Order: sequence, then C-alpha cells, then structure tokens
Amino acid sequence: MNRSPLSDLDIARAADLWPVQRVAEAAGIAVEALEPYGHYAAKVDPQQVQGAARAKVVVVTAVTPTPLGEGKTTTAVGLAQGLAQLGQQAVLTLRQPSLGPTFGVKGGAAGGGYSQVVPMETLNLHLTGDFHAVTSAHNLLAAMTDNHIFHGNALNIDPQTVTWRRVMDMNDRSLRSVVTGLGAPQDGIPRQTGFDITAASEVMVILSLCTSLQDLRQRLGRLVVGFTYAGDPVTAEALGAAGAMTVLLKEAVKPNLMQTLEHTPALIHAGPFGNIATGNSSVVADLLAARLGDYLITEAGFGADMGAERFFNVKCRISGLRPDAAVLVVTVRALKTHSGRYKVTPGKPLPPAMLAENPDDVRAGADNLRKHIQIVQSFGVTPVVAVNVFPGDFPSEHAVIHEVAQAAGARVALATHVTQGGQGALELAQSVIDACKEPGDFRFTYPSEWSLVQKLEAVAQQVYGAGSIELSSAARRDLKRFEALGYGHFPVVIAKTHLSLTSDPQQRGAPTDWTLPVREVRAAVGAGYIYAICGDMRTMPGLSASPAAERIDIDENGEIVGLF
Amino acid sequence: MNRSPLSDLDIARAADLWPVQRVAEAAGIAVEALEPYGHYAAKVDPQQVQGAARAKVVVVTAVTPTPLGEGKTTTAVGLAQGLAQLGQQAVLTLRQPSLGPTFGVKGGAAGGGYSQVVPMETLNLHLTGDFHAVTSAHNLLAAMTDNHIFHGNALNIDPQTVTWRRVMDMNDRSLRSVVTGLGAPQDGIPRQTGFDITAASEVMVILSLCTSLQDLRQRLGRLVVGFTYAGDPVTAEALGAAGAMTVLLKEAVKPNLMQTLEHTPALIHAGPFGNIATGNSSVVADLLAARLGDYLITEAGFGADMGAERFFNVKCRISGLRPDAAVLVVTVRALKTHSGRYKVTPGKPLPPAMLAENPDDVRAGADNLRKHIQIVQSFGVTPVVAVNVFPGDFPSEHAVIHEVAQAAGARVALATHVTQGGQGALELAQSVIDACKEPGDFRFTYPSEWSLVQKLEAVAQQVYGAGSIELSSAARRDLKRFEALGYGHFPVVIAKTHLSLTSDPQQRGAPTDWTLPVREVRAAVGAGYIYAICGDMRTMPGLSASPAAERIDIDENGEIVGLF
Repeated sequence: MNRSPLSDLDIARAADLWPVQRVAEAAGIAVEALEPYGHYAAKVDPQQVQGAARAKVVVVTAVTPTPLGEGKTTTAVGLAQGLAQLGQQAVLTLRQPSLGPTFGVKGGAAGGGYSQVVPMETLNLHLTGDFHAVTSAHNLLAAMTDNHIFHGNALNIDPQTVTWRRVMDMNDRSLRSVVTGLGAPQDGIPRQTGFDITAASEVMVILSLCTSLQDLRQRLGRLVVGFTYAGDPVTAEALGAAGAMTVLLKEAVKPNLMQTLEHTPALIHAGPFGNIATGNSSVVADLLAARLGDYLITEAGFGADMGAERFFNVKCRISGLRPDAAVLVVTVRALKTHSGRYKVTPGKPLPPAMLAENPDDVRAGADNLRKHIQIVQSFGVTPVVAVNVFPGDFPSEHAVIHEVAQAAGARVALATHVTQGGQGALELAQSVIDACKEPGDFRFTYPSEWSLVQKLEAVAQQVYGAGSIELSSAARRDLKRFEALGYGHFPVVIAKTHLSLTSDPQQRGAPTDWTLPVREVRAAVGAGYIYAICGDMRTMPGLSASPAAERIDIDENGEIVGLF
Repeated sequence: MNRSPLSDLDIARAADLWPVQRVAEAAGIAVEALEPYGHYAAKVDPQQVQGAARAKVVVVTAVTPTPLGEGKTTTAVGLAQGLAQLGQQAVLTLRQPSLGPTFGVKGGAAGGGYSQVVPMETLNLHLTGDFHAVTSAHNLLAAMTDNHIFHGNALNIDPQTVTWRRVMDMNDRSLRSVVTGLGAPQDGIPRQTGFDITAASEVMVILSLCTSLQDLRQRLGRLVVGFTYAGDPVTAEALGAAGAMTVLLKEAVKPNLMQTLEHTPALIHAGPFGNIATGNSSVVADLLAARLGDYLITEAGFGADMGAERFFNVKCRISGLRPDAAVLVVTVRALKTHSGRYKVTPGKPLPPAMLAENPDDVRAGADNLRKHIQIVQSFGVTPVVAVNVFPGDFPSEHAVIHEVAQAAGARVALATHVTQGGQGALELAQSVIDACKEPGDFRFTYPSEWSLVQKLEAVAQQVYGAGSIELSSAARRDLKRFEALGYGHFPVVIAKTHLSLTSDPQQRGAPTDWTLPVREVRAAVGAGYIYAICGDMRTMPGLSASPAAERIDIDENGEIVGLF
C-alpha cells in the first residue's frame, strides 16, 4: 500500500467542497438554525434544531501514543466517511485546533490524506473566532480582578492567592512567568503571575462542558479567581464579571459546522487542553450531533487513559450520553515503541531498525494495547481496535495486533482511510456498527458521592493500573479544604503525561504496581472538577529555534503556503 | 425638539433589518464578492468588485470636542441616510469599535438614536474577528522576537532596544508595564516591556493604510521591532514573521459590510487609535466604497486638527482619493465649553448654567469653530458645518453658529438625525451635495520631499495654529537618525491631546502664538509615518471603579442587557 503522492494540502485544495448550506441540509439542519461564516463554515444554533437524541455514540481514542501521534483525528474522520458510505448518517464532533501549535511546531491539524476536515485554512486560522472569544472573556476577568484590587479591594481579595492568570492563543514562553502592574501608581498593583495558552483556560473547559448558554452563565459565575484574606473563595459572580464574559461567549457557545472531504458533517467546537483539562470537544456539539445522526463520532485527546477516561467520567456525566463503542487507534510504530526497544523523537526520522519487518517488536509492546482494551471494557463500552495502516507496515505485524485484540475480546479492523478516504474505513465502520449492537452496560469509574481521594485512587488503579497513589501533604490538605468548600462531589481529572500509562513519560508498555505521586491539587470550580498535578504540566508552550511560522506566507496569488 | 423616549438599544432592537445579501445587492455588490458572517454582516472581497472610483468623497470631522464627544459617528450615519433619501447612492466607511472601551466606560459605539449601524451587538462584539486577527499577528511577532533572542540571537538584536510590545483588546492597566521572561532558564530572557490596547498596534494602522493583501505583506515585512547592537533596524521580514502575520490577516484585510437603520450600506473596517495612530477607517474600504457609491461618507477621529488632518495628509496620500467636502460637526455644548466658562466632566451631568439659553457663550467659544473651518479650507476642501441638534438647544444659539460659519465661508445645516433619522439630515445632505459641486482644489499641508522637521512645523503652524515647535534634543537626534535610515519621505502624525487645538488639554478656543513641545519621535516604518509625542499618550486604558462590564449580562431569554 502506498500513500498518495499528493500532500494533505494538495488533496484539500483539490476538494470539491459543498457550500455549508448544502452540508447542513444533508445533515437535517434547517436553514433557520444556520449562520454562515464565509462559504464553508457556519454556526449552528442548537435551540433551532428539533428532535431527541438518537445516535449511537462512538468515541475515538488510542493506545498510548508516540510523540508523533497515531492518527486519531484522521481515523475519526475516516470512520465517519466510511459509515456514510455504508448508508449511515454520521456526524463528527471534533475539537478546534489552537493557533499556537499551528504557528509553532506542527502546522495545521485537520486529519490527513483523504480523511480531512476542510477547508484546512478555515479550520486552522480563527474559524468563527471562538478561541478569541474565550481569550477575551478570560482576560476580562483577569482585568476586572486586578481592577477590583486597585480600586480599594472591597472584597478583601488577598493578591497573593489570585490564581487566575491571563491567556493568549500563542506559543510564547516569555509569558509563562511575568510581573504585571509595574510603572507608576496609576498602573496597577504589582503582582507575580503569567499567561497560559488559551486552550488551557478554564473558560475553554467551561465552553466545552456547559450544556446551554444559561448553564454557561452559571458556570462562569462560579469561577474562582482567588481567596479573601479570610480564606473564602472569590468568584467571577462576586466581581461582576460573569455576565459580560457570557456576552463575549454568546456566539462561541454555538457549534461550528464544517465538512469532511466526503461532505460528512463535522461539528468543530471548543478545544480544551488534554493534560490539565478534559481534552474533548463540547457537550453542546455532542448533544446536537446525537439529535442529528445515526452515529455520533467524537475524538478524545491522547490515549484511552487520558481523553477517553475524561470523556466517560466527566463529559458523559454532564451530557448524559451513554457511549456505545470506543475505537482504539493503534499503529505498528506505537506498539514497536512500547517494546521499549526504540526511541521516537519528534522532528527526527524513525530509527531505521523500526522500519524493518518485526512482528516480535509488536508483540513485545502489545501489553499497552491490552491495557487500553481493558480500560474501555472497564467502562462497559465495547472496544473496536482500528489499525491505522502505514505504508511501511507488514501483514505479519498487523496479524499480531489482530491476535492480541481478539484474545482481549475486541473487534479489530485495518483502516486505510488516509490513502483511500471512507472507502478505506469500510471494515472499521462495519465493525463499529456491529459493536454498537451489543447490549450497553456503561458505568463510571466512581460515583459522585465518593471522596476525592477515593476518586483519585479509583482512576489511578482501575484505569491507569497503578498500585497506589501518594499524596503530598499539600495535596492532602487541599483535598480536605475542597471538600469543606463543597467541591467534594466533583469528578477528578488527573494531569499526567500522555506518553505513558504512568506519570513517568519514559515508561513504555503497561506497567503495574507503580505509585502515582500527586504533587498538587487544584479546583476548576466553574468547569466543575478537581485536578491533580502529577508531573510537570506545561500550560504555555514555547516556539522552537525554527518555528513553523517562518515557513508560512502568501504567494504572489495571495494563496497561503507552508501552513501544512 | 425632543429626543425620542426610546433608548438606542430599543430603537436598534425594533429595527427592520435586511439580510446582508439584500444590503449588498442594493449596494451593487455581487454575490460572489460576499462572504456572510451571520445574517447581518459579511466580508466583501474588493477584488470581486468591478468598476472605477466615482464617488464624491466626504469626510465627517468636528470642532475640538468635549470629553463626551459631539456625535460624529451619528452625523456620518445620518448624512448617509439623508443622502439616500435624496436618491443618492451613499456608502459609509467607519472604524470598528474596540472591545476595551465597550467593557470599560462607554458601552457600545454605533451612532445613536435613529442614526445607528446595526446590529449593535455584532458591531460591538467581535464582528468578524478582525481585531482578534490583529492581536494574533502583533503578538506572533512579539513571540518570534523574544524567541529569536532566546535561541541564540543570530541577528544580534539588542534586547534593550526592542520597542515592539504586545497587545490585547482590553482595558487593563496592569499590563501597561510588565517584566516578561521570568521563571526558569527555559522560560525566556527577562525583559521590561508592556501591552497596548489592540487599537494602538502598528499592525492595526497597517491594516487601515494598506491598499491590498500584497501591500499588507510588504508593510508587515518593513515593521521594525528594535535594533541590532550595531544600530541597524531589525524587521519582521528578517525575523521571518511577516508571512505568517499576513496569513493571520488574510480575511481581516477585507472590509465588513453592515447597514444603518435605513439600510444604507456601511463598510466597517479597522480601528486605529486616534492619538498615536491615524484614527481613520481603512484605505481598502474607502477604495471599495468609492467604486460603489455616488458618495463616500467616512468619519475621521476627534477634531479636524486630529483625524481629518491625518485623513488628508496620510490616508489620502496613500489611497489617492481626493476629498470633495468635509462636514464639521459642532454642538452648542462644545462651543459653550470653548468659551472657557464651563468644565465638562465625563460621567457627570453638564453644569446647569450651561443648559440655560445663552448665545453669548456660544459666540465666546466660536473661535474654535472658525479655526476648524480654516483647517478644512487650508486643504482646499469645502467645509459644511453640521449642527448636531440637542433637545435643550435654543434657536438663538443655533443662529450664532449660522452667523459664524457663514462669515467664515462655510455652508451650515441643522441636523436632527438622532431623533429623525435620515429625514433629519436632509438639509445637511443637500448642503453636502452642493458643496461637492464646487471645484476641487485639494492639497496636502506638505510635500513628501520636505524634511521631517519642516513637516512637523507645517502641521503645527498651518493646522494647529501654533507659533513654533520645540524639539527635545532626543527628538532632534532621532529625526536625523530616521532620515539617515531612509524614513525622511514619510508623512508625520503628531500625537497630542484631542481636547484642545494645542498640546495642553486645558486650553479652550483657538489659541495662537503657542509652542508645540515635541518630547519624543518614533517611527512606524510598516505603517509608513513618523509620529511625534507631544504630551502624555495613554496606549492602554484602564477600567474605572465601576466598569461597564459589571452591568452587561444576558437575561433569562439569552438576550444581551446593559451593553448600551
């Protein structure tokens, strides 16, 4: 099998796009619900779409990926296209890419080959402005917090406890740690703070988790920016900021309709970080897609331990949707890496030895796949293993994956959607249809009533395969404090590396009997979860010595070059 | 005459809006040129609009305003509506409002009463995202500058000379002066810098002054971020940032079509600051409007000494358009204030004595009007004085304005467009039509070949009425340096208060024989002008103790409240 000689951009440019009105019509979205933004993207007002949720819910996740990623977005797109070719109404829900990485390392994110969301430029640049609205709303709250302290501090905010930073949709390491409020007396109160990338904003998570505009308003009001000298939380509501923040996000709360290369409808909405946040597209888009399609195909960030765990335990708890199947994307290169015999480095070619036919390497890394199948099964969801086929793969290597997956009780399908579009995902689509016919038995890892410590232990042990967790004294103290503040019923998000099932990015395979160290815990009160920091979590990326931006330009015809 | 009892928002909400496609059709814009953003705004691609410039060009300016403003936007909107009622094809070009002030003091900016651009919410919140695109492009250059220094500094940039700050579309005093790059070694190089509001970005000025996407690309490449240790300018081109910045602005360079309450087409595009920048909407929109209409009506920020001077000397020099008439908006309250007998403070009621019938007060302040008429005439442009009528005005006061304007050789018209829409601007519209029939004799204050000092002197003396200018030694040195660097052919922008013809905001009327002190000069090399700082220029506003944002919210139906 060979990849097409055409680049992703060539394929996207050559695409026969439908006007977004036609995509909407085919998806059953009435014209009253549609607000076009240019010719190929539109806001959809969920309140203008009738009907009840009916779709089978399929989440696309993956084994523990290499730093290169294993093609989850592409597989989600390919699967939706494949389902459509089998006569099913499939609707995709995907995260919006962040501008930061687009101009940093990786270029555009829109799937790949013949399984892309188009137009790429629209998707990767601004789209309908939702990220910018999140940036504005987040930074308005920051400005109003500092302004409140400056103008007499009637709420008695202790400036040293203000944890609300500012955000920018940019890779800019110089903003990670800053001192603001310098200059003259009228230039504010000096304070040590910093900027995160917009995808790491709690406002972004709220946009992704709210169920409606009114729910958005309530959640924004609950945002905690810091504490009073007496130790009481200070909310966006108390600062009078939540209303204006909601107004800034009034359009952003509506999902964005785009299309795949085969005109399958794709709702692109919200883009919270996959490490400290939930790494899933929006609840609003899922609820809309569930009313429109026979199949809702959504992608969850990173491996099944990360995005899918949060999809199940956090997002589905809010949306009320019950997932029917989970597609586990696996690649030969990922499992070879999990053998522990190779090291994959972004920006460098794969080690040549990895490219040789070696089913034994795949078998040596198969524990990771087995563990991810078990993770999906632990939620009572039916797994389907999708082998994202690469040109250099060998049938003997695929055979090992087949054997391992089937032995673990999972369906398995080879998928060649990158080179063949939906046609290359027919086997996968049929497997997903079959999987969705199995009786559902969806369950959370823990009930809301459990203590926060119990919830952390449950995820660490039942999902990650850890033997135990180790709480720092600060974490232990803060968990107690959070429960006293009434946050005990929240679900938990564990912020750890996505490059290992453990909290150590160097650990391959599926380690057991290890200890998850919880250094620190924080409360995302507006979003509605507690997150535990296990390892170094970067919330503002930097640019490399040769950032992608240097290669991005317009040509003499005004066309974009170098974006992909 | 009474103002309508309905609020601006009531009127706007009750408006019978046309779909933007119908506005476009009526304006002669083909459907291929239109990219709708929602139902009531659209991008217009100027390359898809045929025809040659044919419109009469009318700039709406004002006497030296009170801090409350004298209704220029409203008058521009009313005039366009009035011209349409007289059977003329009128096209408005206006600046996009900034989010910062919307959430700060003044609420929305869209005209007022029955002379508004609608929908207000769309105009005042995000619109099509152009300001956000400017923010992104500006901050990408900042990130790439710091990143270049961090990764070995191959260009030998002296970090102490970096003048390129960051921007945010927010009133946030805490960001005026900051130290970035703190933290660990991988978190960048510590540097003292700050944030300006997006409207103060040179990228915003470039967006407003460029003639096309390719011209935008060239100007962005010429942006200077700082200097090498050897004293050579470091450009965005050298940093490899200009291409990516252009890509971020690719849609922003297209004007945005909206409508007035009477469906007159309004091109809303760019919004550079009126103090340190040009304070005018875009050249691209003017060139487009000149091809679409019989009359191009544009507004220039602040008084005729400020925005109109720059419109003539900077913007028209680039666009090549030759203005036919200038409307000078005047109010009774402004001239009473110029008597020096009253003090007007924003947020407080007018002094009660100002509301009494007192034509003598108006006469005592009339020098300011005479001077602004002379400023317009000095450019060879025909002035039309528009009295923006307020409910408490007295006919005897209007009579003084009539007498003064006519004695100075200007047409004059009472305008009641706020309460009556276009119907209230018919007299003004007819006066403008008559003025545009006079033979044109447009001329700049100075030719491009003059030295920078000569240009500054010419504006100060011939436009402001100063006796002389006084250059600080630093300003004198930098002007020589700029000429050595090849910037000598640039026009000049003098950054001074808009509340006086002088550089002292306390000076009312039309002082003569005063000296303009030039403290500092800077080069906007991408935008293509030199600007002289005369007085304290704030480039990042702050929020008040009770910012407008606190009153902005959604109601139980999801409708915006408190924005206006």
